[in-house]
Amino acid sequence: MKVQGRHYRTIWTEGCGDDETLYVIDQTALPHEFKVLPLRSVEDVCQAIRDMWVRGAGLIGATAAWGVWVAVRTAPERGFSDFMTQSMEKLRVTRPTASNLVWALERQKKAMAGLSGKDAERAVHAEAAAIADEDAEFCRRIGLHGLRLIREAHERHPDRPVNILTHCNAGWLAFVDYGSALSPVYAAFDEGIPVHVWVDETRPRNQGASLTAWELGRHGVPHDLIADNAGGHLMQHGMVDMVITGADRVTRGGDAANKIGTYLKALAAADNGVPFYVALPSSTFDFSLRDGVRDIPIEERKADEVRVMSGLSPQGRVESVLICPPETSARNWAFDVTPARLITGLITERGVCEASEEGILALYPEHRHV
Amino acid sequence: MKVQGRHYRTIWTEGCGDDETLYVIDQTALPHEFKVLPLRSVEDVCQAIRDMWVRGAGLIGATAAWGVWVAVRTAPERGFSDFMTQSMEKLRVTRPTASNLVWALERQKKAMAGLSGKDAERAVHAEAAAIADEDAEFCRRIGLHGLRLIREAHERHPDRPVNILTHCNAGWLAFVDYGSALSPVYAAFDEGIPVHVWVDETRPRNQGASLTAWELGRHGVPHDLIADNAGGHLMQHGMVDMVITGADRVTRGGDAANKIGTYLKALAAADNGVPFYVALPSSTFDFSLRDGVRDIPIEERKADEVRVMSGLSPQGRVESVLICPPETSARNWAFDVTPARLITGLITERGVCEASEEGILALYPEHRHV
Repeated sequence: MKVQGRHYRTIWTEGCGDDETLYVIDQTALPHEFKVLPLRSVEDVCQAIRDMWVRGAGLIGATAAWGVWVAVRTAPERGFSDFMTQSMEKLRVTRPTASNLVWALERQKKAMAGLSGKDAERAVHAEAAAIADEDAEFCRRIGLHGLRLIREAHERHPDRPVNILTHCNAGWLAFVDYGSALSPVYAAFDEGIPVHVWVDETRPRNQGASLTAWELGRHGVPHDLIADNAGGHLMQHGMVDMVITGADRVTRGGDAANKIGTYLKALAAADNGVPFYVALPSSTFDFSLRDGVRDIPIEERKADEVRVMSGLSPQGRVESVLICPPETSARNWAFDVTPARLITGLITERGVCEASEEGILALYPEHRHV
Repeated sequence: MKVQGRHYRTIWTEGCGDDETLYVIDQTALPHEFKVLPLRSVEDVCQAIRDMWVRGAGLIGATAAWGVWVAVRTAPERGFSDFMTQSMEKLRVTRPTASNLVWALERQKKAMAGLSGKDAERAVHAEAAAIADEDAEFCRRIGLHGLRLIREAHERHPDRPVNILTHCNAGWLAFVDYGSALSPVYAAFDEGIPVHVWVDETRPRNQGASLTAWELGRHGVPHDLIADNAGGHLMQHGMVDMVITGADRVTRGGDAANKIGTYLKALAAADNGVPFYVALPSSTFDFSLRDGVRDIPIEERKADEVRVMSGLSPQGRVESVLICPPETSARNWAFDVTPARLITGLITERGVCEASEEGILALYPEHRHV
């Protein structure tokens, strides 16, 4: 998507031959600074994933895949195989729960099987590019399927913008391009449909305030930041036409784990007759799970994410401030699960389906028998 | 309630005769500093209300009442009546929408009617003390009625603490003493019932993180701070036994306006079979209103409350930091309305009732005919 009029992906290479270099956007510096960083060694790539310069399932997978290419280029001729095994392991442990990471490394392992030197380099380069392109293409298709829903909403009320509420960041920054939840928004905006996005700030890590507001602003999409508490009031007063969120894991029955607080918005949408959509590429499905609330493990993160906020000081420095008494303890579950019964539909790269086993399997019949 | 083992109210006088002085806690300095300030002139009292050193319906009313006493003491002998008229007007305009403020000034006007000098001073001193005592007494009774509900919850699960979730600050800091939502919690704690409070941080002004966490901590009540987004997840997993919130205005049918986000917690409570109580003194009822969502006006406050957070820097200074891109706009509605159908019961100074016109009028029969 666009930053100051120039098209960017979240990960890309520049240069040719031995000068070709991998670049990513340092997302920890957003929204206060737009910083592009080169990743020249496996250690650089590991740091980028571990320290969350890059985040989001799709982007983590693509970064790991490109990380294997960086490893091959920097591998010694003697001991190539050992070096690659160690590099893959280093990449694997950066974010232990990211399933796309493991999946991307497996694909690269197969791509370079039996190869070394320039042959291996060509093979993993092609595979990394394919993984990244596939991620972007799936997100682009999610946008086209979701666009129909936004267009229909616009036709119902052609006199005003379509108001879309989103939670957390499921935009292009979380993938290689386009995003999941925001891809339909960009598609509608680019087609000239008037849209306006309510951006939940998404405490405690504020991905809405720092990432979603930033990327919508860079692309020129009208939006307003709101407290996570505000969505129910907006829906009670007809100020939301639809909710679209991303997902971290979706069961075969359509229960969706996503950033903590998503469930509360789904309840408000159901109570006010507002359609609630979850957008996801197929890699987000976990066809082995049936009951999301019972079976999806929910990570608890460190308390300081709740106790301490960071932002830009009046002196232009990024600072962290404590918002509670110093001795106050906090708890910090990162995700919650929205039961399928509260979800109007799932927007996938293959189309929009009902959030039910039948609906999902109609689009993904290859998973009918597990 | 207690601060470092000493009993405090939120407003009080010390000294005798001409040395008697009015004191309040500067709540804007909490939780980082416990600052007690003397209010020696009407201007001091106006600043305390306007700049929110004191806040909360009950406390604003009591402060205005004591403000009239300060005015009488500092009034000139000649022009007493003009000075008092001007002082009352100065106090009235400090917080235009606070109905308790106007109500307290009216009471003082009646109390001092036809009096001046020492007689007037004695009359308004007695009336201010009565208003403050009444506020504290109503809150104490709310605590006793709510205590029964907590005791029953404890009897159902005697093996573990009763987990109570609250939103915003409806503790003793919002009243003269005890509080509304937290009064039952203090009563249970003081009786030895094991309780644990989930404290919603309450964005955007963070009254949960800064005031509720502080006052529970000072009194020794076990609690954990959570993001406003977390409550639904906790209720899905049986980690909340009941929700108790305060209210800013309640209709004759039991719809409750309270801090933005309360409605989302009520939806989650209903979806998970968790009892949801609203605690309020009778002054919070607005018997003239029937449909809360339609008729209660919702104040929109300035965007910077959402865009900027303040807290304690590592250097020990209170600083404000910007959490979004500098050009991002925000919207900031301060309250939402929870429909009566989602409220299990209202805890008032006269007892617990159903959130319905019949339930409320059974406790307040004098309002049956409007």
